Amino acid sequence: MTVVTAYAYAAPSEAAPLERTRIERRALGPNDVRIDIAYAGICHSDIHTVRGDWGSQHYPLAPGHEIAGIVAEIGDAVTRHAVGDRVGVGCMVNSCGQCRNCLRGDEQFCVDGPVFTYGSADRDGTVTQGGYSEQVVVTESFVVRIPEALALDVAAPLLCAGITTYSPLRRWKVGPGTRVAVVGLGGLGHMGVQFAHALGAEVTVLSQTLSKQDDGLRLGADHYRATSDPATFTELRGSFDVILNTVSAVIDLDAYLSLLDAGAAMVCVGAPGEPLEVGVMSLIGGNKTLAGSNIGGIRETQEMLDFCAEHGIRAEIEVIPASEINTAYERVLASDVRYRFVIDAATFRD
Amino acid sequence: MTVVTAYAYAAPSEAAPLERTRIERRALGPNDVRIDIAYAGICHSDIHTVRGDWGSQHYPLAPGHEIAGIVAEIGDAVTRHAVGDRVGVGCMVNSCGQCRNCLRGDEQFCVDGPVFTYGSADRDGTVTQGGYSEQVVVTESFVVRIPEALALDVAAPLLCAGITTYSPLRRWKVGPGTRVAVVGLGGLGHMGVQFAHALGAEVTVLSQTLSKQDDGLRLGADHYRATSDPATFTELRGSFDVILNTVSAVIDLDAYLSLLDAGAAMVCVGAPGEPLEVGVMSLIGGNKTLAGSNIGGIRETQEMLDFCAEHGIRAEIEVIPASEINTAYERVLASDVRYRFVIDAATFRD
Repeated sequence: MTVVTAYAYAAPSEAAPLERTRIERRALGPNDVRIDIAYAGICHSDIHTVRGDWGSQHYPLAPGHEIAGIVAEIGDAVTRHAVGDRVGVGCMVNSCGQCRNCLRGDEQFCVDGPVFTYGSADRDGTVTQGGYSEQVVVTESFVVRIPEALALDVAAPLLCAGITTYSPLRRWKVGPGTRVAVVGLGGLGHMGVQFAHALGAEVTVLSQTLSKQDDGLRLGADHYRATSDPATFTELRGSFDVILNTVSAVIDLDAYLSLLDAGAAMVCVGAPGEPLEVGVMSLIGGNKTLAGSNIGGIRETQEMLDFCAEHGIRAEIEVIPASEINTAYERVLASDVRYRFVIDAATFRD
Repeated sequence: MTVVTAYAYAAPSEAAPLERTRIERRALGPNDVRIDIAYAGICHSDIHTVRGDWGSQHYPLAPGHEIAGIVAEIGDAVTRHAVGDRVGVGCMVNSCGQCRNCLRGDEQFCVDGPVFTYGSADRDGTVTQGGYSEQVVVTESFVVRIPEALALDVAAPLLCAGITTYSPLRRWKVGPGTRVAVVGLGGLGHMGVQFAHALGAEVTVLSQTLSKQDDGLRLGADHYRATSDPATFTELRGSFDVILNTVSAVIDLDAYLSLLDAGAAMVCVGAPGEPLEVGVMSLIGGNKTLAGSNIGGIRETQEMLDFCAEHGIRAEIEVIPASEINTAYERVLASDVRYRFVIDAATFRD
């Protein structure tokens, strides 16, 4: 029950590459679970955060919020997890638990603000450190089970990329008969295609080019169209019930809204740094909806993992050693990854 | 069963004021209803349309899509209406009746395009002429009943301003416990406040100034706040479930979205001519929704009229003779009307 020092990869400043270091993990509290991390996914937002794109940070900062591992130790009051369990941790590690949003399972919208997995003020005042590390200590209620059917490496990205795409598809009631477009086939999009397909929808990928068409169809898409081809926007006019926009680039919202049928919704899970323009008539003409969606709550994250186990859904990954994190960052920024880098946590000591 | 010539007020061109003229109404078909118009409301969109702001028109054009009157004659096959019935006609006078949107009662989104009440190509190829006229001939399925409890003059504006605000409040499930903000207290807003209040919501008016506060509270608002006061945006942060935006002005969408609670929606029923800017993070941070809403279907329009009769809801109006239409247009553009001008159709001959 003492503070543990763990090897980790952390950014020493917003301008410097990540490097091997040691970070402290808090002494196990009665409701805490200590996890031996096996794999940690690399999310685009890790890069934005450590580089200070979304505000100044406390350094050194170890990012990582797609964590899969094995329970190594539990606090006296822990009831949900046992030593040896296969578990995951996503974007949050705590919340007030008592506000209206927490009570309905939307901890990500905790009125007090949730404690994010890294770079966030924890309830004890320390700054959280993420999953690019050998170990992590997390309150049990923010630890989810990873079903046996899911290998830990392909499960890790589900904790962010998975729930981020699963939650809006459920909220917008995607099922048999729903015509879904997934914009972008990257870390998020390749999950969105699998979920929409498994939910029974007719799935179209809208990607800049057809370069990933084979992958898209293999992952479950029924159609694959290039957005660089103007015919895509004329031919598909009014033909979708839900558009899941996974790209963070600036796009022509009105053009995409024209692809929605009456009463339909476009949901954005990626946010460009600059505001987008929207013609309000693009929304009024057809009772259309432009929405955002931000990960999902803990209960829904567990539901998503169980759904993946049941339907054979997993992230497509490239496993790398910790020493390649900085190279991987450059490749993520160049969209040169199919579809998620996952760090082998056994290499954090190397 | 012959073509009828009716006195009307029409714009001879996009640049000229409306003037008295005579227009033809088609010979009564088997499914048609001829209505002696009693009152016609003046909608802001009448002005935009006749002045060519929304595209070129066929002139002379008689606008008007808030029509209340008495059935004067019916076709052989008419079953829903009888001579002497009190009836209304709104923004549409026909649609295909067979597409998926028509079949579910959303005739305003007819895949072939609905026939609008004026300035629209009718199914016989003629251009429709609106309600600034003594008479109108309409297919019976686009004619709604006006309950006895509603006087025809205060009922007329319900056919557009009423349904435009009622439909989104129903779609977004406003009821007891819902915290609703109505942006703007004009022709649309003064209806929205009454509907939201009658549905059981806690209603806040957000208006540029407090100049109409007494009216707002009398119409059913619980709170009235000035958007020109920056404190409004800090104090009301995160405090609404639904924002009904009735203004057509360019507004700071991100500021209004910050007033929504997690999972909540802002619905726009007024559209500025220019696009608005939206920060996608304003939507993602809180699973928020920006939506548009366009009138409502015929069945829902009837439901709205019945709801008004039941709850004592009516438009607040200023009745004018036809000779004052052009003056009224200038006053509408100057927001100098509480809250809707209604033309006395007995004066179209004068």
